[in-house]
Amino acid sequence: MSLDYKQAGVDYAQIDPLKILAQRAAAATAGNLARHGLIEVAASRGESAYVVDCGEFYLASITECLGTKALVADAMRAITGRTYYDRIAQDTLAMAINDIVTVGATPVSVHAYWATGGSDWFADEARARELVEGWKAACDACGVAWGGGETPALAGVVAPGRIDLAASCVGIVRPKSRLTLGEKLAAGDAIVLLASSGIHANGVSLARKLAERLPDGYATKLGDGTLYGEALLAPTVLYSPVTEALAAAGIVPHYCANVTGHGWRKLMRHPGAFTYRIHTLPPVPPVLQFIQREAQIDAREAYGNLNMGAGFALYVAAEDAERAAQIARAHAIDAWVAGRVEAGAKQVVIEPLALTFGGEDLHVRL
Amino acid sequence: MSLDYKQAGVDYAQIDPLKILAQRAAAATAGNLARHGLIEVAASRGESAYVVDCGEFYLASITECLGTKALVADAMRAITGRTYYDRIAQDTLAMAINDIVTVGATPVSVHAYWATGGSDWFADEARARELVEGWKAACDACGVAWGGGETPALAGVVAPGRIDLAASCVGIVRPKSRLTLGEKLAAGDAIVLLASSGIHANGVSLARKLAERLPDGYATKLGDGTLYGEALLAPTVLYSPVTEALAAAGIVPHYCANVTGHGWRKLMRHPGAFTYRIHTLPPVPPVLQFIQREAQIDAREAYGNLNMGAGFALYVAAEDAERAAQIARAHAIDAWVAGRVEAGAKQVVIEPLALTFGGEDLHVRL
Repeated sequence: MSLDYKQAGVDYAQIDPLKILAQRAAAATAGNLARHGLIEVAASRGESAYVVDCGEFYLASITECLGTKALVADAMRAITGRTYYDRIAQDTLAMAINDIVTVGATPVSVHAYWATGGSDWFADEARARELVEGWKAACDACGVAWGGGETPALAGVVAPGRIDLAASCVGIVRPKSRLTLGEKLAAGDAIVLLASSGIHANGVSLARKLAERLPDGYATKLGDGTLYGEALLAPTVLYSPVTEALAAAGIVPHYCANVTGHGWRKLMRHPGAFTYRIHTLPPVPPVLQFIQREAQIDAREAYGNLNMGAGFALYVAAEDAERAAQIARAHAIDAWVAGRVEAGAKQVVIEPLALTFGGEDLHVRL
Repeated sequence: MSLDYKQAGVDYAQIDPLKILAQRAAAATAGNLARHGLIEVAASRGESAYVVDCGEFYLASITECLGTKALVADAMRAITGRTYYDRIAQDTLAMAINDIVTVGATPVSVHAYWATGGSDWFADEARARELVEGWKAACDACGVAWGGGETPALAGVVAPGRIDLAASCVGIVRPKSRLTLGEKLAAGDAIVLLASSGIHANGVSLARKLAERLPDGYATKLGDGTLYGEALLAPTVLYSPVTEALAAAGIVPHYCANVTGHGWRKLMRHPGAFTYRIHTLPPVPPVLQFIQREAQIDAREAYGNLNMGAGFALYVAAEDAERAAQIARAHAIDAWVAGRVEAGAKQVVIEPLALTFGGEDLHVRL
């Protein structure tokens, strides 16, 4: 029997009405900025980070949640004795940083949100130390300052023995010409896909559900001998070194999409009506091949929910495409000039799989 | 038998080593900002918000947690049928906004972090609507834009039926002369205390523990007939309208302290060695009188952990003190010129209670 998202425990039909209410209320607060001589960049509503025009530059901000990936680390600790929280730290920061860079921002500072089910969580020294070390290493990799954070013990709110991890990030867009909200996207642009390292932190509910029905659970060996749980814990790639290097090289993407929930449907996140035609598929990381096979999900379900090897998409002028890919590779992130933007109905056409996602398959806006 | 914090379930001895590790690692990331032509304001480390010098202005940021106060709302719903999540929303935002204004920042935008134990949390329409409405109202009251947020369903991480609430806030300090990190604090300055509305969101673990041992729990009536639980749910005062009005009136505080955890010990939060002598006590809100009496805690325990009627402290030049208090009152927040800063050992002397907290009673820095 195949697994799907509702079985994995997340029912968007229950969450979406609240989200819409909240988005409308949030949009209605824009006028408050006038009191401070500031103005919202309205086109950032619905994008991956919020942008305010501060005159000399744009200010971008974001708060992002890790999700349930720490539960995989907790389960794997019982199997291998490692904590994996250095990786979990990178995953959490990547959620915020990979989103904020989509609007053209340089991430400047981050705050940590580490809410636990009780003070005893922090008494596990190895785990606490690796969480701190991984967080710092990810900050250093992205050139951001770790400004502070919260480490509350919330018995009764967070489950016993667990931790709820999130990150907030502030960035600046300077010069203002780096702002990437999609106005420049045009037919003829190239789509450059940047490699993922594995599942990253989206689709983890499905991956956890799958572990429950494998006889060896997270200890199941993949073809190369890696344990399923360890493969899931490959840390999310941090893409800000690439976006910063592109800016330094004079390449301003016409749009960026962080491939997270909704998988490749996110490739049509841009608000306009374009067809995104993919001619080249990145190799699928073994752990995602394994999930697709063992969860018995078809290509539509897999590419519609998982990153399938592409963690981030850059939309650039065709003449910049190969150079953009080279810049990513120079930062040890594989990259492919994988498709192009065309005039036409809003859809993602994955030619090698004869698979099409229509505009109705993605609802990320009001 | 009296109640104390360890009985209430928070053991700082377990959390503090991790906090110190994290603070050291965070401080070591400051140099990353040089890559972007920015510089950290090192004096903001250990203060209530992180500050970066962006040239034209300072950028301040913060992420803050509500804590366990939503559990009181959940319990009260069973008693009165009201959700109280409009108030809980204000509490959550107040945690971030009242902190960020201490450094002289104008709060600009906020992100919501609403992590639930499952999608079903959001299916309760009245509660979800009141959470949204209260959040928006608090944003409007403070003149901040609600930029976005996260509403994850985290079964297995957040406890079933519960919500983990936090807020992040970005602010700017402009003109830069508004920066309030304490350099100007001097003997002779006045201490102006601003009224709290009740317990705010600190000391709630103690208040919840007390409810467990009252025969009528949260339904216990206070002297004026208010239910204990409802009195606890008076929303935290938002102080940013006062700090903004002070700036508009040309009063730049020499220091500010948000009176949260550690109660009046926070009055000596400033890094320098000064004696803070209090000659006038604000009236104690009935709910805090009730807690002190019923939990059988003495004045030292009460003033050392609860706000006891003073939610925020302004340290201003003596000649500005009365005017600062008047500005607060004009914003419907009672205020008292309650004490003065003196040369001398680091301590808070509460003369009307013959109570002294020494510098060793507060550890909020490395």
